[in-house]
Amino acid sequence: MTDIKTTLSDVVGAEHLLTGDAIGEDYAHDEALSREPVKPAYVARPENAEQVALLLKAAAEQGIPVTARGSGSGLSGASAPRENGLLISFERMNAILEIDTENHVAVVQPGVTLQELDDKLAEAGLVYPVYPGELSASIGGNVGTNAGGMRAIKYGVTRHNVLGLEAALPTGEVIRTGGKFVKASTGYDLTQLIIGSEGTLALVTEAVLKVQPRLQHQGTVLAPFVDLDEVARAVPKVVGSGLGPLILEYIDGLTMGAITYSAQLQLGIPDEVRETSQAYLVVMLENRSADRLDEDIEELGELLSGLGAKDVYVLPGPSARKLIDAREKAFFTAKAAGADDIIDTVIPRAALPQFMARVREIAQENNTFVIGCGHAGDGNVHLAVLQKDAEVRERVLRGLFEAGIDLGGAISGEHGIGQKHVKSFLALTDPAKVDLMRRIKVAFDPAGVLNPGVLFD
Amino acid sequence: MTDIKTTLSDVVGAEHLLTGDAIGEDYAHDEALSREPVKPAYVARPENAEQVALLLKAAAEQGIPVTARGSGSGLSGASAPRENGLLISFERMNAILEIDTENHVAVVQPGVTLQELDDKLAEAGLVYPVYPGELSASIGGNVGTNAGGMRAIKYGVTRHNVLGLEAALPTGEVIRTGGKFVKASTGYDLTQLIIGSEGTLALVTEAVLKVQPRLQHQGTVLAPFVDLDEVARAVPKVVGSGLGPLILEYIDGLTMGAITYSAQLQLGIPDEVRETSQAYLVVMLENRSADRLDEDIEELGELLSGLGAKDVYVLPGPSARKLIDAREKAFFTAKAAGADDIIDTVIPRAALPQFMARVREIAQENNTFVIGCGHAGDGNVHLAVLQKDAEVRERVLRGLFEAGIDLGGAISGEHGIGQKHVKSFLALTDPAKVDLMRRIKVAFDPAGVLNPGVLFD
Repeated sequence: MTDIKTTLSDVVGAEHLLTGDAIGEDYAHDEALSREPVKPAYVARPENAEQVALLLKAAAEQGIPVTARGSGSGLSGASAPRENGLLISFERMNAILEIDTENHVAVVQPGVTLQELDDKLAEAGLVYPVYPGELSASIGGNVGTNAGGMRAIKYGVTRHNVLGLEAALPTGEVIRTGGKFVKASTGYDLTQLIIGSEGTLALVTEAVLKVQPRLQHQGTVLAPFVDLDEVARAVPKVVGSGLGPLILEYIDGLTMGAITYSAQLQLGIPDEVRETSQAYLVVMLENRSADRLDEDIEELGELLSGLGAKDVYVLPGPSARKLIDAREKAFFTAKAAGADDIIDTVIPRAALPQFMARVREIAQENNTFVIGCGHAGDGNVHLAVLQKDAEVRERVLRGLFEAGIDLGGAISGEHGIGQKHVKSFLALTDPAKVDLMRRIKVAFDPAGVLNPGVLFD
Repeated sequence: MTDIKTTLSDVVGAEHLLTGDAIGEDYAHDEALSREPVKPAYVARPENAEQVALLLKAAAEQGIPVTARGSGSGLSGASAPRENGLLISFERMNAILEIDTENHVAVVQPGVTLQELDDKLAEAGLVYPVYPGELSASIGGNVGTNAGGMRAIKYGVTRHNVLGLEAALPTGEVIRTGGKFVKASTGYDLTQLIIGSEGTLALVTEAVLKVQPRLQHQGTVLAPFVDLDEVARAVPKVVGSGLGPLILEYIDGLTMGAITYSAQLQLGIPDEVRETSQAYLVVMLENRSADRLDEDIEELGELLSGLGAKDVYVLPGPSARKLIDAREKAFFTAKAAGADDIIDTVIPRAALPQFMARVREIAQENNTFVIGCGHAGDGNVHLAVLQKDAEVRERVLRGLFEAGIDLGGAISGEHGIGQKHVKSFLALTDPAKVDLMRRIKVAFDPAGVLNPGVLFD
């Protein structure tokens, strides 16, 4: 039997198989907090699907754990390698293969970043509307976690915008699923099953993405409210108005202070309003016509005033961009503020006030500082937990997850379970579902080499 | 061991277990053409999820094939029973459980029809936008086939609008997947896997549907073109305009003649236009404002004229409704015209002219009459095949499927594989994918009792 290093090296070429000290620090982690970096035994940088399949086949034969890595911006440890494992880095598979303006799709390799794709699509007057905070994130990673982001209220999440995949299976085959079409009823939807599977079922080697006309005009309104209850009551009215918000975010007073401070953002909100506002609603609209946008912004302002907003600020373009940008970067603000963990529980959006009340109780009971802001339009609440004691922190996280699930929610809206939340996932999920998922896992990966320790223990 | 009839009867009550002559003709078939009706050994009419699970458990223990039936409007034989099998009819599980205006979801049982749901949602100013032709279809059937319909160009298909399910597994458990939220990254998406699985993995006992504000104003434009090539060139421009069409349909001249004749529809198209137009584009727009709709219709008209439309007819409401209605009922028109089979291959929409050219060749080569019209916006082509000889017909169908797949498409866009197209599905699908799907099937249904003969042989 050839030794594994030679086998892997034969597949990708010696210069693209890294071992020992040649493996840089970056490969040892993703952006999950409170997790020690671990260098893998091998880093392979394949250049096509066939190489990925051969790597998987070799790893399966020798029982070597395999982790896929795009940009390494994941927050749950799903792209952090295992010691003695093989990390497959998609950095060389980063081509935008096609912008197809007739079928309105983009075909890309998994290593393409959201920023690269957006730049290219902008030239064609198009947009891939999935917009998670981090534009350095890769499409492969987005598919792995079913990335969501702020525009989900209008455009849905990754799974609503990926039409097809090419993927390498741990059994060594390369398959194609879906295609350049929205409709299909031709067997099980493997595209959808692979999306959100966090690198445990198959490795994506190409994706067909649905793209949209890029609307030219955007306008943003910031509305302070007395408290979250009022924000939660306003949200369904905004959605029901037919104004079709692109972004509908809730920011609590504390977070607003932190992000405006860190982004050095002057929004012109008088002190007396700021001091009596515990919750802000940020609504962004888009339109292909500037006039219609202006009319809609005015209508939105009136609607919000009637719903109890203490004032309505129409933000000029640069301020709006800065605020949204700062909101997107809330993770880094939280990290800089010393957050020990970040979670993103999702709940039915109307349950937001109940959930946040429960969050406050759990924080107090455990002497832990928990701050956060949420995607008000879709009930996805991002919370930063500041608690150095790992045991207490785990208890807090478990409590927060339970609170979300009790309200009809789920552990994660867009970050994933990864390595970080496996215990909670297994403890809080119906065993019949866990067993079924394990059987699905075996159907794809009988040797159990794809991302062991992610989703399952 | 208690005999199976007693067991099933104990679960649903004697009055809801039918056998022998008590089983009406309706239960013996769905709407698939050229398939002999087959009465099942048992028809059970459960009233809740627990009963469905107990039925499945009993059937799995005794190896009795189980088929689910909603309204029986399926076109591929996926809801047609097996002889000696158990047909589970969801006619009693037909409650709309909740219209939740805060979270914008509807929670329904599988036996609810699209018409019933639409009537109820209209009262609340809401709409479930998935709109396949047949409004008597049930939600359960829509989930089973991943139903699509005309509005997919704007709102996607069933899988883009179902947020969660309750389902009974053939292993006897009842699980809940997803919930009242759009985002989730918490394990494999079982909701998506069950959608489109044609009753072979699990039986849906409840569905959480995303609903939208019901826009009040709709306008329809009919544009005759010289031929399909011109229509296909116009479609991406309409999509790219940002006008956001609700419906974008292509109708060939022959079909237009048939449906306007059968619907007794006068569209006011002069003879000289009609005689030189081989292809029509029907575009429907919607808006919450009548003024904006009028502006958009005007813009659309100018756009279409510039793209080669020989004229542009803005249809008055009643005519538009009749045309769309007739288009939806094209299946019945085809059936009345003696169609022996109906298929709905999907292709990338830009490939429509190439596909239709191939369709004509195949029809000629086999002396078979093939007519059809398509969802131009999403590449889903509905074809009626008139050929009494089963062998020749099978060859024609196979050829049509192959042509679609060669162009990057799939066998069915929304009807499903069912019992009818299993041979073609297995012959034309990558064996690695079929094997993987079989393993997934076993993961759900180790006893192999759910709809044997559907998808797999």
